[in-house]
Amino acid sequence: MIHKLLIATHNLGKLCEIRDALSGLPIELISLSDLGIKDEPVESGETCAENARLKAVYYRDRASFPTLGDDSGLEVEALGGAPGPHSARYAGPDATDQDRIAMMLEMMHGIPLQNRRAAFVCALALAVTPVEVWEFSGRCEGRLLSKPRGLGGFGYDPLFVPDGENRSFAEMSIEEKRELSHRGRALAALRAYLKQT
Amino acid sequence: MIHKLLIATHNLGKLCEIRDALSGLPIELISLSDLGIKDEPVESGETCAENARLKAVYYRDRASFPTLGDDSGLEVEALGGAPGPHSARYAGPDATDQDRIAMMLEMMHGIPLQNRRAAFVCALALAVTPVEVWEFSGRCEGRLLSKPRGLGGFGYDPLFVPDGENRSFAEMSIEEKRELSHRGRALAALRAYLKQT
Repeated sequence: MIHKLLIATHNLGKLCEIRDALSGLPIELISLSDLGIKDEPVESGETCAENARLKAVYYRDRASFPTLGDDSGLEVEALGGAPGPHSARYAGPDATDQDRIAMMLEMMHGIPLQNRRAAFVCALALAVTPVEVWEFSGRCEGRLLSKPRGLGGFGYDPLFVPDGENRSFAEMSIEEKRELSHRGRALAALRAYLKQT
Repeated sequence: MIHKLLIATHNLGKLCEIRDALSGLPIELISLSDLGIKDEPVESGETCAENARLKAVYYRDRASFPTLGDDSGLEVEALGGAPGPHSARYAGPDATDQDRIAMMLEMMHGIPLQNRRAAFVCALALAVTPVEVWEFSGRCEGRLLSKPRGLGGFGYDPLFVPDGENRSFAEMSIEEKRELSHRGRALAALRAYLKQT
């Protein structure tokens, strides 16, 4: 039984989505900030799943208790699946969400609506011990807008409209996004796992 | 106009409540974790308002952009208003929420229902520049339970039932707590201020 879980991300948006999705479980959620950990491993994996695992194991070693790693990415069909696991670093190491959105809009400039398919993917890795690592994943298909819409969410959310919706992720509440999103789906699987252990 | 705001707290519960209450404003929220800041000022104030101001100014100096400080406390009538601004450190510097709750239950042991009045207070300080600091506050009256209830919220939430409610803060969603709570009220005032600047 897991009583305490380190949420190994510095991203405030991810932190709050994870906290929201795991609320009501008898598990104390700890942040890197709580532990005063500010260093980061090199995200050398070629997939989100590899990076999530690498982060979970790295921070599990530091904390010595169960740790959750998250790696997510946006796969854009017209860009051959890029930026994928490099989504956060696509516009440089110190780029802001605004920089990333501006760069994506530039890359997608002139590409017609029918070729703007994209998918968000989320990989979660739960490192219970250094060798016991569980993986959960979620995927959300949709399309990219030609102008950002909405002020919620984070990252590329203002550009992404999931299939079956007219609003971008940034126009949804945290609960609405949870129901539809890649991270919400991966977290639902993690939550089910945590409840049955 | 404020475009970027540092949320100067290491507390994940506070971070997510602040993010929730300020969502939809055209302001980028930055965490201490984003900036790699892990040190903390000594909270030497005698009131929550003094501590909130002290934290906002301290971290504003580090970040060089507008910064929000939060200091909150639980004032228990039967304890002469204690722990008040010392609520987080009442059970020692490394205490967990569980330790704090256990200590409070012990202090309140045998005190009858009619003498279990308490109030949560929240002070927010917005340091726009080193000398321009705005203050907002909120208060929520209620009573303490003799056993913790619920798994949401943080801190003393499982022990506190606000007036007019039967559920503890820890039995409410983040939105329900926002509507009633000391922090929700202070954040509503801050939000109104941010919208009109």
